Amino acid sequence: MSLTVVGSVAFDALETPFGKRDKILGGAGTHFSLSASFFTNVRCVGVVGGDFGDEEWAVFQRHHINTDDIEIVPDGKTFFWSGRYDYDMNTAHTLDTQLNVFETFQPKLSEESKNARIVFLANILPMLQKEVREQCTKAEFVAMDTMNFWISSMKDNLIETIKVVDCIIINDAEARQLTDEPNIHKAAKAILDFGLKAVVIKRGEYGATLFTKDSYFACPAYPLESVFDPTGAGDTFAGGFMGYIASQKEITDEVLRRAMIYGSVMASFNVEKFGTERVDALEYAEINQRFRDFKKMTHFDEIPFERSISA
Amino acid sequence: MSLTVVGSVAFDALETPFGKRDKILGGAGTHFSLSASFFTNVRCVGVVGGDFGDEEWAVFQRHHINTDDIEIVPDGKTFFWSGRYDYDMNTAHTLDTQLNVFETFQPKLSEESKNARIVFLANILPMLQKEVREQCTKAEFVAMDTMNFWISSMKDNLIETIKVVDCIIINDAEARQLTDEPNIHKAAKAILDFGLKAVVIKRGEYGATLFTKDSYFACPAYPLESVFDPTGAGDTFAGGFMGYIASQKEITDEVLRRAMIYGSVMASFNVEKFGTERVDALEYAEINQRFRDFKKMTHFDEIPFERSISA
Repeated sequence: MSLTVVGSVAFDALETPFGKRDKILGGAGTHFSLSASFFTNVRCVGVVGGDFGDEEWAVFQRHHINTDDIEIVPDGKTFFWSGRYDYDMNTAHTLDTQLNVFETFQPKLSEESKNARIVFLANILPMLQKEVREQCTKAEFVAMDTMNFWISSMKDNLIETIKVVDCIIINDAEARQLTDEPNIHKAAKAILDFGLKAVVIKRGEYGATLFTKDSYFACPAYPLESVFDPTGAGDTFAGGFMGYIASQKEITDEVLRRAMIYGSVMASFNVEKFGTERVDALEYAEINQRFRDFKKMTHFDEIPFERSISA
Repeated sequence: MSLTVVGSVAFDALETPFGKRDKILGGAGTHFSLSASFFTNVRCVGVVGGDFGDEEWAVFQRHHINTDDIEIVPDGKTFFWSGRYDYDMNTAHTLDTQLNVFETFQPKLSEESKNARIVFLANILPMLQKEVREQCTKAEFVAMDTMNFWISSMKDNLIETIKVVDCIIINDAEARQLTDEPNIHKAAKAILDFGLKAVVIKRGEYGATLFTKDSYFACPAYPLESVFDPTGAGDTFAGGFMGYIASQKEITDEVLRRAMIYGSVMASFNVEKFGTERVDALEYAEINQRFRDFKKMTHFDEIPFERSISA
């Protein structure tokens, strides 16, 4: 039932066609934890500066996210990212990145964090991801994210890390870049061949796909008429996916499929408001309603065609 | 049970990274008819030149497609299109277009063609589509295709035509262009507001979506590791979609959903070989197997989440 995530806890400044925020809670570890907290007990491992305030801690507390392993550097500043989205909300334009205390981040896991059954390694230096994974000796299912920067600058290290996890959750451009393979299905198979149990490929407004050795599952995106702020959507997806898996006794193909839907459900809420605002205020009834909506929008009866007319 | 299609019957010259063909059977009416012929009796309305030979007619005959309304202009030449695809198989680069007898095409429908219950207006001049639609006074369900050229050059005429059909089947770029609306869900609603019962938006490798007033259905594409030749995929989709509808007594939401799957099934075969080669040789068992594959790759159990752990 336990889930540990290692990743960034940050402040974001965001500008979209629909408004702006100067300094709001963000970071992969944050978005992931918040999303997963609806399904299981979460421990977040990260680092913040002395500027991380009561308002930010309150978000974690409200959702019973364990923050014992979020290190505080009192005289340091929290990781800060500033970005802008144009009407094409698919691409974030980075305006400013201040790594601050995150630059020298060394994850320090308590025994409780190390003992987690389910572990998520958000996007950080691949070698750090590997170190964390190797400390979690009791983990049954470990998933990781990464980004284009690590793929181009340290692919060998990254692949060594991929080889010790069970699942990778990346977007389609990253899957193509990692494998030098334009076809997404061939790319996914090449990544599976590193020894993974599952490869999840996120495709933005087109949904997400799950590849395992024996199965393929295609999940559409929720039909949103407006995306307010896509920041953190991928981590929120991962949080719903891994949180749901952590809530289940066994990790079967059926559980992974439902996890894909819960990930998509959570991501669809995340983009409806700025930063963590929407997920922070989410109710279980809303989650289950949207899960049912996903069923409705993908369901069809399996009736084989029999030609009954004369030719 | 009867289905009439009006559209181009053509010769194509194709070049893809996987090979080339100098002169093969093509055209929207052809691809549509061939695909639909697996589900229902099809009448194809079009025009060809004296160069249209026994080999071409044989394809129609093999699939019992009625060609009484394909006019032959003995001293004219058949519509010819030449195109090239690079490794990005999403975009066709037109090398040559010779309209020939198609330039002055005036569809001439026999009584039998006019009496069809189901009608498809493939991509031709919008005013011609409207004329044909108005001749088919017994039609219960009429769908149309169009293209970017008509949207930019005669949008008003096109909209007049859209207003007299029941369904439009277009790709996402066309839907955006038609409505000046970047969000595909808003675009689909705007098109529905012309008075349509259904809007089908094709999204290439991402599948297709069906919008009606009360329902939304998302259908993924079949996971193909290589696309050999995408020419005619959209018309083959429309053929499977409309052919299946024509085979059913009532046009319910469930029928439309299965029609989306059959359309996707047929399109997935079409791209596996050049031109009409693959669909021409298709067996019913293959169609039904791939239909079952679609069920497998989209199915998940609807189990609402109940948090059973302590926070």
